[in-house]
Amino acid sequence: MTARVIDGKAAATGVIERAKTAGAALAAKTGVRPGLAVVLVGEDAASQVYVANKGRTAEACGFHSVTHRLPTDTTEADLLAVIDQLNADPAIHGILQQLPLPRGLDANRVVGRIDPDKDVDGLTLVNAGRLASGMAGEAFVPCTPAGCMVLIRQVLGESLAGKSAVVVGRSNLVGKPMAQLLLLADATVTIAHSRTGDLARVCREADILVAAVGRPEMLGADCIKPGAVVIDVGINRIAAPERGEGKTRLVGDVDFAAASELASAITPVPGGVGPMTIAMLMANTVSAAYRAAGEAPPRF
Amino acid sequence: MTARVIDGKAAATGVIERAKTAGAALAAKTGVRPGLAVVLVGEDAASQVYVANKGRTAEACGFHSVTHRLPTDTTEADLLAVIDQLNADPAIHGILQQLPLPRGLDANRVVGRIDPDKDVDGLTLVNAGRLASGMAGEAFVPCTPAGCMVLIRQVLGESLAGKSAVVVGRSNLVGKPMAQLLLLADATVTIAHSRTGDLARVCREADILVAAVGRPEMLGADCIKPGAVVIDVGINRIAAPERGEGKTRLVGDVDFAAASELASAITPVPGGVGPMTIAMLMANTVSAAYRAAGEAPPRF
Repeated sequence: MTARVIDGKAAATGVIERAKTAGAALAAKTGVRPGLAVVLVGEDAASQVYVANKGRTAEACGFHSVTHRLPTDTTEADLLAVIDQLNADPAIHGILQQLPLPRGLDANRVVGRIDPDKDVDGLTLVNAGRLASGMAGEAFVPCTPAGCMVLIRQVLGESLAGKSAVVVGRSNLVGKPMAQLLLLADATVTIAHSRTGDLARVCREADILVAAVGRPEMLGADCIKPGAVVIDVGINRIAAPERGEGKTRLVGDVDFAAASELASAITPVPGGVGPMTIAMLMANTVSAAYRAAGEAPPRF
Repeated sequence: MTARVIDGKAAATGVIERAKTAGAALAAKTGVRPGLAVVLVGEDAASQVYVANKGRTAEACGFHSVTHRLPTDTTEADLLAVIDQLNADPAIHGILQQLPLPRGLDANRVVGRIDPDKDVDGLTLVNAGRLASGMAGEAFVPCTPAGCMVLIRQVLGESLAGKSAVVVGRSNLVGKPMAQLLLLADATVTIAHSRTGDLARVCREADILVAAVGRPEMLGADCIKPGAVVIDVGINRIAAPERGEGKTRLVGDVDFAAASELASAITPVPGGVGPMTIAMLMANTVSAAYRAAGEAPPRF
């Protein structure tokens, strides 16, 4: 078998289109235009790129988009004051604090200050609690696992009842919320991690395998059940001497070539899960605006 | 093999003794005596018994113990005012709202009003979020799964690395927090439930099997891996005609006789998990008092 390659770019474009359409429909009906505020502290180069992309995509969706760029030496009190002001701003429905923060600023305290109903990154304890309590309709779910679910549903449909899912990795940002989402969709869910005994054996039970460990091509053919759907969250840069001295390339946590021979569907790296993250941020922002307007949010 | 029968009564007595000793030590050091408030609305007979037990046990631990008994027709506003008053009371470290509430009172709203740092039942979204985010030191964990972990650690020790754990049942009160606790102890954790395909096969992989489904003796010998540790949370009353007409008896979710032949250790019903719940409420109350006093809480 050669696996179907799941096109994350096309799926992300579809989500962004739906976010745009839904945002316009809300504005036409209620006058509420979705608003996203992104807060960046300091000069981290990668963060600058991410923040610019988020602002640009929000504008392309027709959202009200603001970016707060604060200097590296911003005090926590000043940063919290910015968050408070955005919490109180009725034109802002989603607040994203770009991480990491410069040294001396406590990410838990800063993120924890965001109004849970504007927490479109799904990082507050209240949203983690909502998701863990099965309140999917009220929770904002972190964008990467939310995007993985869109891809899984494209392949397998709404219900995962009777299917076994294995999530490798237990981070708060990906692994744990991913497991909650799969459970809510009625899969039988296993969370494996660095302390798991026979990882390959556990993975081989998976009808749905989600890899989120951050180790290049760690999961090989011995980890893939024939016919499995494989979602690779890893984005690892490795040396690629075959492309020339000093060249690099991106690979996932799964050995794509080997897994493709066994899986029924698999996400590539790049071009799989990656593009979904920013798309789901737009989806979450639209949902936040719908809720703020007292309307039922669309499904993505 | 005949399994060791885990004595939940003895374990619960041990926890209650430690809570008493720790409470007395805190009072001697800081003058803070742990305080537990239990709120009961209405005349539910079972709830009356539970509430009386909790108050009695708190007193036996030397705690400051108050019980608020409110009439069935209490309005939500009045109930919330009682919660607010307890939130503000420095002599109260733990607040337990006995459930179920009479019709017309919203349990989510009422429980959600409890200060998360006094939520010794672990039912608020913030505590669910803390647990789901691995903040075990700050989370109040629901008493039943917390009690199961004490029993599991008695048998297997602190680290469950390399062990596979299967939780059958995905309730917010037991199954889901149980899975989080096992994961925090480094087990490889599977959550199975009513929509799981081949349940017996999944269970047979478990070095640690936790049954929390509420169906009498549903898990039989075909669900038990030889040498497994079996924790049975179910308490089901079934007809016992062998004891005389109209007689009943309590059984768990596991077929105890059959499982005992295979497991290395197993909790009985009654006398296993049951007694741990109230003991962990005392432990959580002591922990709340320690934190309120700025002291590191003891481990249970």
